[in-house]
This record gives sequence, structure tokens and C-alpha cells, in this order.
Amino acid sequence: MQDKQYLMIPGPTQVPPAVVAAISRPIIGHRTEEFADMNRRIVERLQVVFQTQNDIFVLTHSGTGAMETAIANTVSPGDKVLALVTGNFGERFAKMAREYGADVDEVNFGWARCVDLKIVEEKLASNSYKVVLATQNETSTGVTNDIAGIGALVGKTTALLLVDGVSGVGGIEIKMDRWNVDILVTASQKSMMLPPGLAMVAVSQKAWKVVESNKSPRFYLSLPAAKKNYDKWNTAYTPGVTLFAGLDAALEMMMTEGMENVYARHKLLAKAARAAVKAMGLELFVPDDAYASPVITAVKAPEGINGDDIRKVLKKEFGVTFAGGQGVMKGKIFRIAHMGFSDKMDVIIAISALEMALSRIGHPVELGKGVKAAQQVFLGGNE
Amino acid sequence: MQDKQYLMIPGPTQVPPAVVAAISRPIIGHRTEEFADMNRRIVERLQVVFQTQNDIFVLTHSGTGAMETAIANTVSPGDKVLALVTGNFGERFAKMAREYGADVDEVNFGWARCVDLKIVEEKLASNSYKVVLATQNETSTGVTNDIAGIGALVGKTTALLLVDGVSGVGGIEIKMDRWNVDILVTASQKSMMLPPGLAMVAVSQKAWKVVESNKSPRFYLSLPAAKKNYDKWNTAYTPGVTLFAGLDAALEMMMTEGMENVYARHKLLAKAARAAVKAMGLELFVPDDAYASPVITAVKAPEGINGDDIRKVLKKEFGVTFAGGQGVMKGKIFRIAHMGFSDKMDVIIAISALEMALSRIGHPVELGKGVKAAQQVFLGGNE
Repeated sequence: MQDKQYLMIPGPTQVPPAVVAAISRPIIGHRTEEFADMNRRIVERLQVVFQTQNDIFVLTHSGTGAMETAIANTVSPGDKVLALVTGNFGERFAKMAREYGADVDEVNFGWARCVDLKIVEEKLASNSYKVVLATQNETSTGVTNDIAGIGALVGKTTALLLVDGVSGVGGIEIKMDRWNVDILVTASQKSMMLPPGLAMVAVSQKAWKVVESNKSPRFYLSLPAAKKNYDKWNTAYTPGVTLFAGLDAALEMMMTEGMENVYARHKLLAKAARAAVKAMGLELFVPDDAYASPVITAVKAPEGINGDDIRKVLKKEFGVTFAGGQGVMKGKIFRIAHMGFSDKMDVIIAISALEMALSRIGHPVELGKGVKAAQQVFLGGNE
Repeated sequence: MQDKQYLMIPGPTQVPPAVVAAISRPIIGHRTEEFADMNRRIVERLQVVFQTQNDIFVLTHSGTGAMETAIANTVSPGDKVLALVTGNFGERFAKMAREYGADVDEVNFGWARCVDLKIVEEKLASNSYKVVLATQNETSTGVTNDIAGIGALVGKTTALLLVDGVSGVGGIEIKMDRWNVDILVTASQKSMMLPPGLAMVAVSQKAWKVVESNKSPRFYLSLPAAKKNYDKWNTAYTPGVTLFAGLDAALEMMMTEGMENVYARHKLLAKAARAAVKAMGLELFVPDDAYASPVITAVKAPEGINGDDIRKVLKKEFGVTFAGGQGVMKGKIFRIAHMGFSDKMDVIIAISALEMALSRIGHPVELGKGVKAAQQVFLGGNE
């Protein structure tokens, strides 16, 4: 049936009707008071989400552009960079630093594992890095890293901590200032409940000194250019004004719900999804609840079944779209996003459809068992 | 009155209701058949607009990002670049090349003048350039340059011709292949009738050889990265899927109208606007119809009146927004965009409001005289 589609990939995520309505309003000029007022309100609310007093620049590109904004403004050829890698997006961050000529020390903690703080401590003790790269929420595996712990270590050094918060910010708590994050980037199409096309980049005072003197070429991604008109709440180049209107509406929703409630909601959804997967007799890709992501749950495809075949049935019969595995995990896992505009019934839909798809494929599954486990979590019976 | 606003700036421009509706449809995943089908259809229609057989990449950023995509993929430190400058955006293109370490030979033809082909010929005869930069439509002044003429000269050399078609493509004819354009870039929020957030970049075979071996850092703006998934009609990074849906709808509108008719419409609007301005006793900033822009008309503010004061009255009393002068022309001119989703009545609104605003300010103006001149053009009486 047309428009009865359930998009459960880690971006783009579903867009709330209130945000669609805001995006659809008549377009305004970007050098106007209306735009400046909106931009100021957006930044003030983003500061609540990021838990920061730092400047936050809303830029018109997607998450990879946000990550490159962090790199292009702090990394010059020959700079020593420590990359803490836990999956595909950690690898991308490291690759980007190499593209800018950095000498990258890439530590891979393995897919489905989180960053080991002891190794970070050792690395920082025996090397002098200019920049440390970390991923808040590694969507390729469903792991959330301990940014507070990493920041406590990096904060004692002269190195800058650059955090890819693309899929996590807005769904998973982050305290930029208290946790010593120097550049925090996120994008619109994940936990922020918007279509793709906007990036948000916050910059600490410690980072600014490096940004101002950095030698890599940058124009569209230039933070000094963005800073120039920031006090007037204006942008360096033409911004995606309709998406700004959407961001304004999305932040209004988040403020109304309250960030504590937003974070609790995502944790609850992850708990229910994980309980359901286990009840169905499937294996969670991330074994440990302690660092399992609140916004996405990765599941191992049952022995002998390609995860992408399950996804095809899900899409065709039930209109449900999960994400597949990336890189080395292609076909071996599938991923259920419950980020952004996602609530209890989305998990019920996901699990129920998964049960039916497995049944259709011929994998033994007791219908309703996963759903029941999720229901119990929602009713508090599984607490 | 709410929503009775008339945005007449050179981007963002008004968005047609059919495009807003397409953008508002439920969001889809970008690694899907639906997306690939849409992207293929978009590229095939863009090839009609660009008049090219070349690959066209639709990227998620705005016009300045599009220009930088052209530069970052062709310019390395020390490269010799000829920049043909006729205003603010030509200056920006040259500045960008310098940011990438180019040795830029910047020829400024003056604001309100077009590129002089004789000078281009001399420059090309006495120098060996890797890249030549030109602006199709210089929105800061309202001048359209002779890209056919420039391309005929550059095509005889080994240099690549990079054309900023940000405000012109879709409103002013361009024949990429026949005119020897090597990289043609445009953006969504001008003549293409979309909100800001998408860029379109077409690349010739001659350019690809340079692109593949270029040494400047590039990741988000990388054309080789974009090329990698192009055959599958997929993008390197998360694309602005809702804006793609809008672009699909906008191109449908353009194909239905017919590109010949689209170009003729813009020429007619410019003719009417220019006739009206003259009839009102005001001075056109671009004196010569031969190279006056079909998509934007710049007008000198009357002696003793700041153009921005006229704009304030226009906005406050009539909901009409013109653009001001940029750079050296700030306050001295104002600019009326008639690009993209713009037709006869938009010019009537613009001229009528301008007459009333001038009258309100105390500048002597015969009400209706400019409107009459525009009407005569529309009725063919002024042919």
C-alpha cells in the first residue's frame, strides 16, 4: 500500500509531520531578519543538545562533509593523528585524515567492540598527537563509545578530540564541554529527525587556535569563513533554508519532550529490541549491553541465511526497511535503527515483521515471542 | 498578510507547489531501487538541460560547494589558472583557486561588463594555463558572459574550461559539449526552482584525466568518489533525498514546458523588466542588452537614494524582496531576480511595487508607467 512504508535504516530516518510541514513553508531569503532569528534559536537549542557554550555552525552538506569540516580545519600534512576505530565510520574518519596528509596512527578495536580506554591511555602517554579521532555511535556495528572516558584522557594532553557524532547526537547524551570534546559534528538525517542535507559543527576554544592557523585548503568547508558572519547569525554561503526551518521544528519537538526523556526513550527502544532479538533465538551482534547503541541494534543473520535475503522479504511483503551489514559484515548482519522519530510501536513493527520474514524464509521462529519480549520491556515487566 | 510574500532574490528563489509536494513525500532510503531510478531519470534530464553526454553528479551542498568541487578536483598547488572575472562570483572562483595553491592570472573586466573575447584570445596565446575559470551568469551585476565564445578559444588549447553556471543553468541556454565546457556546475536554488542544498557537476572526458591525477585533498567533494557508484545510479555519501525528489519534479516541469520555451520566457521577463526600468526614468546597471542577464536585472539606485532604503520599503509595505548590491556596489544598485519559477505577473508585481516604493520615499515617479512598458512587451507591442 502506498505510503505504508517503515524506514528503519540509520539515516535517512523518518521525518515527523511537523518537520515536513515546516520544511514546506514558503521559502525565505537567507540574508533576512527572519533567517537570523531562526538561526539564533537553532544554535541556542543545539547548545542544549550538545551541552556546550561553544559556537555551533549549521552547514549545508551531509555527515561526511561534517566530518571533513573537522579534518580540513585542523589537520595539515605531516600532523600526527590518533584514530580510534570501531567500524566503518571510524575507518572513514581515519581515511579522511590521511587524505589531508596526516600521519595516522589507526587503532582498530574490532567490529562489535568499543574503544578500550587503557589502550588510549597508553597511546597518549607514549606519543604526541595533534588530533584524536573518535566515533560516538558507530552505526556500522551498533556500538556506542565512551566519549566521556576518551575525553577525560585526551583533555589532559594538547591534542584536540574530534568526535563524529553523526548518528548519535540527539539520541544519545553527549556533554561536549564537560567531556573535553573539541570538535563535535553531527548531521540532520539521523537522530535529529530531518532529511539529509545539514551538518552541525561545534568548535571549542582550544580547537579555534588550531583552526585559525591550519594550512589545508578549505573554502566551502572553512570554519573561519563560517565564523565571520556567525555573530550576525548569518552563514558564509547560501544555506539550506528549508532544512533550517525543519531543524527549528525538530528542535522544538526535542525541547518539548525534554532531552532526558529523548535519551531515555532511545535506551528503552534498544532494550526492547535486544530483548526481542534474544527471545527469538537470534544472536545480537554486539554482545554487551554496556556499550550497545541506544539508537541502532545489529543482529546476526541466522546460520546459512544471508541477511540481505531477510531484508528483501521484509521490504517486499511488509514495507519494512532494515539496513544491511557494511564492509566486512555485508550479508552477515542486519541492522534495525530506532533513532530519531522512533517510538515503541516502531520496535513492535520491526520485530513482528522480522518474525514473519524469518518464518516466510523457512527459519524456525515462534511467532509473537519476540514481540512479547518487547512488550514486557515496555510494560516494565522485564525491568 | 502571512504567506503573501514575493521573493525576488537570485537564490533561494520561489519553489513551485509541485516541487514542494514532491519534497514533502515520505522519505526513502538512498541505497534503494527507488532512489536509483529517480537518480537515473534526473541525470538523463539534466543532460538535456546541460546539452551534454557527460556524466553529471548531483551532490549534496550548495553553489559554492559546487564551484569548489570543480577546483578541488582539477587544481593543485602551483598550477597556472586564468580567471575571467566580471563580478563578485568571478572573484570568488579566483579566490578559491588561490586557496588551492594555484598561480592565478585574474583578469577583471569590470563590474557590469562582460568578458572581452579578444583579451581571452591574447591571454591564451601568450600563456599556458591548466585551467580557465568563467562565470556564465554573474548575478552580482546581471551580466551573462559568452560561454560559446570563451569555449571556442579554450577548446583549442590543453586548458580545461570550468564554468560557474550556478545561477544561469536552467534559465539561460548552455551547450556544454558543443561549447567545449569541461566542468559545468550549477546549484538547486536558482534557475532550477528548488530550495538550496543540491549541486550538479558535469565533467568532460578531457577533464577526467586531470581529475583522476589531481593532488589536492578531497573527500566529500571528490569526483572520483562520486564516479565510483555512478553506474549504479548511487551516491558516494548520503544524498539529500528529499531535494532529489524535488529536483525530479522540477525537471519534469522543465521538460513539459520545453527548454526552448523556458529560455524564451526568461528572455521575455528580462526584456520587460528592462523596458519598465527605463520607462520609469531609472538607469539600468548593465547598459547593453546584448549581454544583460535573462534571469536578473540590476538597477542603479536614483541619485541620493540608498538602494537598501528602497528595498526596506518594498519588503515592509509590499512583501517584495529584491537583492541589494554586493561588494563595491552595496547600496548603489538593487537587483530584481526573474529566475526559475518566475513569469509575467512576477515582473508586474516587481515593477508596480518599485513604483510605489519610490513614490513613498519621495522620488518622483509616474505610477503605472513602468508597468505599462512591461505590459507592452508582454503584448508584443514593444517588439
